[in-house]
Amino acid sequence: MAVQTVASTTDSAAGTSVDLGPAAALSCRECGHRVPLGPVFACEECFGPLEIAYDFSAYDTEELRKRIEAGPANIWRYAPLLPVPADVATKPNINPGWTKLVQADNLARELGVDAGKLFVKDDSGNPTHSFKDRVVAQAIEAARAFGFTTLSCSSTGNLAGAVGAAAARAGFRSCVFIPHDLEQGKVVMAAVYGGELVGIEGNYDDVNRFCSELIGDPAGEGWGFVNVNLRPYYAEGSKTLAYEICEQLGWRLPDQIVVPIASGSQLTKIDKGLRELIELGLVEDKPYKIFGAQAEGCSPVSTAYKAGHDVVRPQKPNTIAKSLAIGNPADGPYVLDIARRTGGAVEDVTDEQVVDAIGLLARTEGIFAETAGGVTVGVTRKLLESGALDPSLTTVVLNTGDGLKTLDAVAGTGMTATIRPTLESFREAGLV
Amino acid sequence: MAVQTVASTTDSAAGTSVDLGPAAALSCRECGHRVPLGPVFACEECFGPLEIAYDFSAYDTEELRKRIEAGPANIWRYAPLLPVPADVATKPNINPGWTKLVQADNLARELGVDAGKLFVKDDSGNPTHSFKDRVVAQAIEAARAFGFTTLSCSSTGNLAGAVGAAAARAGFRSCVFIPHDLEQGKVVMAAVYGGELVGIEGNYDDVNRFCSELIGDPAGEGWGFVNVNLRPYYAEGSKTLAYEICEQLGWRLPDQIVVPIASGSQLTKIDKGLRELIELGLVEDKPYKIFGAQAEGCSPVSTAYKAGHDVVRPQKPNTIAKSLAIGNPADGPYVLDIARRTGGAVEDVTDEQVVDAIGLLARTEGIFAETAGGVTVGVTRKLLESGALDPSLTTVVLNTGDGLKTLDAVAGTGMTATIRPTLESFREAGLV
Repeated sequence: MAVQTVASTTDSAAGTSVDLGPAAALSCRECGHRVPLGPVFACEECFGPLEIAYDFSAYDTEELRKRIEAGPANIWRYAPLLPVPADVATKPNINPGWTKLVQADNLARELGVDAGKLFVKDDSGNPTHSFKDRVVAQAIEAARAFGFTTLSCSSTGNLAGAVGAAAARAGFRSCVFIPHDLEQGKVVMAAVYGGELVGIEGNYDDVNRFCSELIGDPAGEGWGFVNVNLRPYYAEGSKTLAYEICEQLGWRLPDQIVVPIASGSQLTKIDKGLRELIELGLVEDKPYKIFGAQAEGCSPVSTAYKAGHDVVRPQKPNTIAKSLAIGNPADGPYVLDIARRTGGAVEDVTDEQVVDAIGLLARTEGIFAETAGGVTVGVTRKLLESGALDPSLTTVVLNTGDGLKTLDAVAGTGMTATIRPTLESFREAGLV
Repeated sequence: MAVQTVASTTDSAAGTSVDLGPAAALSCRECGHRVPLGPVFACEECFGPLEIAYDFSAYDTEELRKRIEAGPANIWRYAPLLPVPADVATKPNINPGWTKLVQADNLARELGVDAGKLFVKDDSGNPTHSFKDRVVAQAIEAARAFGFTTLSCSSTGNLAGAVGAAAARAGFRSCVFIPHDLEQGKVVMAAVYGGELVGIEGNYDDVNRFCSELIGDPAGEGWGFVNVNLRPYYAEGSKTLAYEICEQLGWRLPDQIVVPIASGSQLTKIDKGLRELIELGLVEDKPYKIFGAQAEGCSPVSTAYKAGHDVVRPQKPNTIAKSLAIGNPADGPYVLDIARRTGGAVEDVTDEQVVDAIGLLARTEGIFAETAGGVTVGVTRKLLESGALDPSLTTVVLNTGDGLKTLDAVAGTGMTATIRPTLESFREAGLV
């Protein structure tokens, strides 16, 4: 079995002719070794993760800013900074992004943050209601460039829907692998887009292991696994969160940003995006702090952070925040680096605090977040109480998904009262 | 009991000082009698429905167009055409609107519509994922203007969530009335925003009757019922669908538009919005056709249309399209007028066709619609087959809500196959 994880000479040759805009090569995050663009994700020298290296040298800052501002109200306004062809916005895709940055003054008041300083970046406004639409949109363009005809992934929820929807619109076949005993609601959400949905008899680890085998097998030929062999492209989608936050703040960096941690990829790419904006001169060069948020029931990175470790010891997840429940997060060490380098921190909250925070955000700002949003809001509260977050600084909290997808977490929420349809019964209920 | 349905002298006096932008008065749709702006909804002369009369006389067409285009990416870009104060965008609200108009070439191919001619206006992108956010946002501004402190409504779903979220963010108390036996998921969606949620022992008609009593009772003083005493303001929110469609088409009218019918209010306000754009010179004056869509299990308007009647005979609803299940639609006669005047039609589809259409839209465009969206897409297919819709003309189909809210309708959708985590088992499943 020849698992196609590293760039071989053949792959490299195949990859040289693709047009993915400013993406110039793949570069190893560990050793810096460069290979041509191709459907590979691990360095042939050291097995480190490959990421996109760009050539932004031709850009004039003010021309670039104008080009972005004149662009569409979705992630493709940032096409000049992404691994996509210049004409990406003309191709059929579900066009995620440009979600609301909500000035959360009611929440600020409850948390003791200065008025006008707290913002929620609400990614539940994406087409399938999670930030996954951003990353899948990049993977689709890479899949087109490399000639793949089937899009695939392993998933337990948000990603399955995002791949199904994007593949349907873009004209790809999709085949998504999920654990066979997934909740019926999530199965429906993934199946409705008409792609193949295959249940695997086993747990999520078994699903992942099977996908890795399939990539190396002739049966998987022509298949782009968005979070495996297309991962370097896919992951770049998270940079758009950083771009949007800064542009929506009036081309300013936030002072503090609170990001959920699953694999840790999103946090590292937000950092990458912020640094790119500084290097390009689109925002002033000033310090910012990045904070990571986990649920206590799956907190390998915050545990390592608090212990002062550089490595992350895997955990067996046990939390209601299922979209963050990755016990062995691939980018965990990079998250630790970034939190420490920027002066941030990594913190976790209990499931009970997650549920409380979902309710807090809903009743203050009218935003119904999935459990991952409860994690970031809960961690924000905890970090304000501990003094790690400064309540006088501009702070952005991410909500990466939609409460409609994790209704079970707030199933305890219910009616204030039940009455007969009479004014007398209404008065007796004590609501006036 | 003095139900406050008609404008009394006192109400009129109280209403004169409010600033609701270009809204000049309330005008009876039946007899044209005008009264000052106030929290009333029925004509004191003939009991006809009151609607907003505007003063747009000061507007210069090209200045107005520029002002709109420079406005925010939400409904408030159209503030000059709505019953809201000029500074509405600076007030806390959930800012719905400016949802995607998706060029649906895949769907067009399946339905036999010319390439580039079919569009889906996808209102599932609103904050609480239905078009109700548009109407509630108007009601909130009227409630502010009239000094109400509690927002209320009767609801069986989408409206409850929209009111709960908007009230939370805008700083109103909310008290929403629902049938006591509503599905648990819908209760959770409505309760999470922290307002009062009161179950009424009875059906939806009992809930409505109770709300009418409450409006006339001291217990309901200071209460704005978004779809009762604030209805003239509330209903105007649907005009923004017409404005957005035309602006997103490049300031062009569509030739044909397919709209779902519940009370019929949305369809009549879309017509009103299109006519305003013509009168203001923002689009060219040319014919357009409006088509109404119902589910067969609640089709009082299409039944009347087909029978050539001017009046609508009430029906007892029995359909999975619950958000459209109004058996006695208040605006039914106006819908008949508009369909006939514009050369459109009213049609209905079976629940089975609704489910098929939800799947069709999902697998062609990656849009997961609620049952109401299945109704409009299903009716579009039927009207194309009958020749009532011209496949060579620019056609817009509305999706007014999100499939995540009506998962039961597609519960039959499931996995293609279940396999063991081996390549052998995968090959046996016949997927490659």
